Amino acid sequence: MAFYAAPVARLIEELERLPGIGHKTAQRLAFHILNQPLERTNKLAKSIVDAKRSIRFCSTCYNLTDNDPCIVCSSNRDKTTICVVQDPRDVVSMERIREYKGLYHVLHGAISPMEGIGPEEIKIKELLARLKSNEVREVILATNPNIEGEATAMYTARLIKPLGIKVTRIAHGIPVGGDLEYADEITLARSLEGRREI
Amino acid sequence: MAFYAAPVARLIEELERLPGIGHKTAQRLAFHILNQPLERTNKLAKSIVDAKRSIRFCSTCYNLTDNDPCIVCSSNRDKTTICVVQDPRDVVSMERIREYKGLYHVLHGAISPMEGIGPEEIKIKELLARLKSNEVREVILATNPNIEGEATAMYTARLIKPLGIKVTRIAHGIPVGGDLEYADEITLARSLEGRREI
Repeated sequence: MAFYAAPVARLIEELERLPGIGHKTAQRLAFHILNQPLERTNKLAKSIVDAKRSIRFCSTCYNLTDNDPCIVCSSNRDKTTICVVQDPRDVVSMERIREYKGLYHVLHGAISPMEGIGPEEIKIKELLARLKSNEVREVILATNPNIEGEATAMYTARLIKPLGIKVTRIAHGIPVGGDLEYADEITLARSLEGRREI
Repeated sequence: MAFYAAPVARLIEELERLPGIGHKTAQRLAFHILNQPLERTNKLAKSIVDAKRSIRFCSTCYNLTDNDPCIVCSSNRDKTTICVVQDPRDVVSMERIREYKGLYHVLHGAISPMEGIGPEEIKIKELLARLKSNEVREVILATNPNIEGEATAMYTARLIKPLGIKVTRIAHGIPVGGDLEYADEITLARSLEGRREI
């Protein structure tokens, strides 16, 4: 016989499709949901539907937004600087430092020949189109410091430089609070390369 | 400024309320959901609403069910034996060993003076009412082998014995202090075999 009533089995199955949620966790979440008041479960379901329905890409920076242009693009921020990131989550990380006052451009991926992702699959030509306005004076490449992110940064830099715009790359080095002893050689080499006079 | 568009923030907030889901995980789940096709997110939301709407307690055994009486109570199983468990999840664990052919009774908790849960808060009187039918010849107490579960088993046994019904307790094949939900099938099967009259 089936162990669960059909709607419970379906709920567990749906929860299991989420990343990092195994069968046991899905089961625990499902029983938790069933134990909640109806109002709470409806709110959860509604938040899923609402987010999915109302969220789209900003037509300027391609960040996720419920209004187009997004809150960053439509605000009074420094329009001479664009920070290029791979993912909408990276915008959140950058915003959290509360120091960056410029705009963003979300590539939605990185160049990865291994996974068949070429420059056309990510928002590079959209970035180049933005640069034609002559307003932008610096592009900060903040793609991830791994092979794909580096390749994407290099590729993008080569396209932007002929436009006479300054292109910078975020510094690589030892994380603050990190331990020199446990840093890998490449990171350490990068942090040495990037040393500054104090 | 807000880091997320409002619907995304709400979705993250709702996901964070789930047990074992912290902020980072909620964020990852939310972005995963936003990346899914609309059809998939609708299915997820629908499974939550459907499960919550259609699932109730079986009026006989108090297991979760979408039909009353539940599939176990309405099936052709051995009606002379009732296995008493704390939680609907424990029914699933018991069913998984594919050896038990009797009925269930879900208490929905265990006696715990520390948490202010007395015998009236759990389905003990409903169990006693079932035993009046004279059909039942054995009650297997399969509450968790921890303080609360043992106390509940002792208390229940003392009420049932005067009715002339055999009362057994699953054997301590399961590590004491453990949780029935996480027991493996073999351990659980052994503990069923080794049950003793109390």
